Amino acid sequence: MKRLDLFPITTKIENHKLNIANCSLEELANNFQTPLYVYDKATLDLAVDSYQQALASYYPQAGSVTYAGKAYLCLAIAKWTQSHDLMLDCTGEGEIHTAVNANVKRENILVHGVNKSIADLKSALQYAGTIVVDNLSELEKISTLQPINSDIWLRLLPGVSVTTHHSHTETGHHESKFGMTYDEILEAAKFCKENKLPLKGLHFHQGSNFRDPEPLIPAIELALDIVKEIGFEGDWHFCPGGGWGVAYHEDELPHPSIEYYVKGICEAVVEGCEKRKLALPHLHLEPGRSLVARAGVAIYRVGAIKKRENKTWVLIDGGMADNPRYALYGARYSSLAVTTTSQERSEVISVAGPYCESGDVIFEDLWMSNIQAGDLIAVPVSGAYHLSMSSNYNGARKPAVLMLENGEAHLIQRRENLDDLLRRDVI
Amino acid sequence: MKRLDLFPITTKIENHKLNIANCSLEELANNFQTPLYVYDKATLDLAVDSYQQALASYYPQAGSVTYAGKAYLCLAIAKWTQSHDLMLDCTGEGEIHTAVNANVKRENILVHGVNKSIADLKSALQYAGTIVVDNLSELEKISTLQPINSDIWLRLLPGVSVTTHHSHTETGHHESKFGMTYDEILEAAKFCKENKLPLKGLHFHQGSNFRDPEPLIPAIELALDIVKEIGFEGDWHFCPGGGWGVAYHEDELPHPSIEYYVKGICEAVVEGCEKRKLALPHLHLEPGRSLVARAGVAIYRVGAIKKRENKTWVLIDGGMADNPRYALYGARYSSLAVTTTSQERSEVISVAGPYCESGDVIFEDLWMSNIQAGDLIAVPVSGAYHLSMSSNYNGARKPAVLMLENGEAHLIQRRENLDDLLRRDVI
Repeated sequence: MKRLDLFPITTKIENHKLNIANCSLEELANNFQTPLYVYDKATLDLAVDSYQQALASYYPQAGSVTYAGKAYLCLAIAKWTQSHDLMLDCTGEGEIHTAVNANVKRENILVHGVNKSIADLKSALQYAGTIVVDNLSELEKISTLQPINSDIWLRLLPGVSVTTHHSHTETGHHESKFGMTYDEILEAAKFCKENKLPLKGLHFHQGSNFRDPEPLIPAIELALDIVKEIGFEGDWHFCPGGGWGVAYHEDELPHPSIEYYVKGICEAVVEGCEKRKLALPHLHLEPGRSLVARAGVAIYRVGAIKKRENKTWVLIDGGMADNPRYALYGARYSSLAVTTTSQERSEVISVAGPYCESGDVIFEDLWMSNIQAGDLIAVPVSGAYHLSMSSNYNGARKPAVLMLENGEAHLIQRRENLDDLLRRDVI
Repeated sequence: MKRLDLFPITTKIENHKLNIANCSLEELANNFQTPLYVYDKATLDLAVDSYQQALASYYPQAGSVTYAGKAYLCLAIAKWTQSHDLMLDCTGEGEIHTAVNANVKRENILVHGVNKSIADLKSALQYAGTIVVDNLSELEKISTLQPINSDIWLRLLPGVSVTTHHSHTETGHHESKFGMTYDEILEAAKFCKENKLPLKGLHFHQGSNFRDPEPLIPAIELALDIVKEIGFEGDWHFCPGGGWGVAYHEDELPHPSIEYYVKGICEAVVEGCEKRKLALPHLHLEPGRSLVARAGVAIYRVGAIKKRENKTWVLIDGGMADNPRYALYGARYSSLAVTTTSQERSEVISVAGPYCESGDVIFEDLWMSNIQAGDLIAVPVSGAYHLSMSSNYNGARKPAVLMLENGEAHLIQRRENLDDLLRRDVI
């Protein structure tokens, strides 16, 4: 079944029940309550392996892969990134704090952020091997802090758009708040030289969740033009960023392969450097959600079902508080019943959460098997930008998160309890 | 200055500095860090008084006002609602827990929710005077629980739209997930009779943040038709819900008055009851954000400023993590500098936050006085649906919240610290 291909690679339907990594989702939901998030370790590992193998195949020099903390970060995930020696991209001191507490080594911590505070910068200088500087005033702030033992990369605003699913996930276009223009980069590089700041690389980010690496090519060309103009001393680092997309719905399958994305970038970098007689950089990939989205599955329990004239609402116990992507972007999801006598098409339903907001929807107008109150449903591709954007709206508590591997489920984040909701309150 | 009218009623500009309740916003920002949220108690009190006075003027029987916990709830706000004897609308056991810990008395706790879990219902039956039942299966669940000492109201789906600012804030239209249709209400009332459930009232909710009470009238008519058909024994309660709007931007000033809204509802209820020979109900108003939005102000510090061809980005230290309303609805905000030599128009700017998302914007293309890096800006009408929807995106920590009164600032919610971000993590 095509829909199954949205789920983690270890997903199976056995005796009419959905299993991931040989764990019964029904049992997990009963034990840990719903909403519940599970991550499949095998799917996480496979995504990293795919990137690392493609890099080894298509890039003749050193390359590495960066995990985007903003997609989903906790201590266990930070630790997992180090089992693959990934760079960990942290935005600000909050994510740096998580990385440090997970013993991520200094050279693997890379700090992003469009408006880093002094506290962010102090934390970055203390703990991070690399700071990606977003703007000139940030560079001036850094120069007032000591010691500066972190590599500095500059973030270029390439001024080229990619086609993403929503304008809020485009970051590289002309009027974007992110990064520096060509002229600002030159000025920043001059500032680094004059102030003896360890300028070591160039970064750009084109947007998130796209399907075609082609629009990265002109941005890579532009970036290499700048590198030629700046001139790096010794080894240099290049990160043509932009989160590779994933299929959220079976209509989006097959999604172009990771190999296709990596090959496109590697070839453009190699050819571009040859053309300009530049030494090949240490190439960094920032594949964003594609490392983690498919590994995650959200499990909800159905509470009530409402028939409207042209709509059947299936009401579940989670929604925009744990996954605001429909409310934010009109994201389209798919789903399978966790336990059912048949996964065959029974009815077209829409699934909404318990919160007092019409945008509290997970998906609309999707065929599903027969769903009854009390049933469990599993929503695939829930690994990225759900929990990291989750809220306590309507007094919702953040769900428990499990890592699944070889028949075992490890709790990596506990469910919030009622007193957690009051912990900041002062009378 | 018109823009000042968006701010709390005690706001003054003195010696080029913005004060609220005789507290210097600059001093507060320096002492409590930014982003910082402040609430002006006088503005909160005035909003309640306006509703209570209008009710007393235009409604000949008992009436009361309900505070919507979903707009913003913490222990201090829950306690404040009781100083005015407000009903407190709680969605689910999370908000009930806050109400109970603030010693809100049973008869003032009212529980809403489109898909209440068994845990929500048990908590509601234990602590709440009133449960607004959303659907038939919820009623069936309640009937299996004991004892049932809470009043039951039924939530009608009126099938009429109001004009709000975004489809996600419309709740009363035809295909909405909320409430019961006319026929379902009749069935639910029958179920209550047969199962001896204490059915005491009818509720509907038309949407949030609207400017014209007129579309409530056909919904009130429909609701009274149902009441006539059901017949309540003894006193009955009626809540024609729908959150009255507020002006977020000076272009929306003047906003129609609270009196206009209350008068419209009261007259429709009185006339509708007379026409049908119904006893006047205990009338409940649910004015939503209009009780709390204007009392709240968000204070941010500017980190960097970026000039683009057609855009000047002023980058601040908060954004969609504490206020996702631009990202969710494209909401329009206004602002004033906290300290400036002149509040006169200097430049048209756009204000964005530090988070890695293009939707992380507070406002676009607004004239402001001269703003420099390091300056503070104050965003009015930040009291509702900011903090209640806030997240830890990019490792953001939820801001401190202060209640201001007569020159004193009381911390009511502390800022999250770095270790708060790890408190759910299990290794």
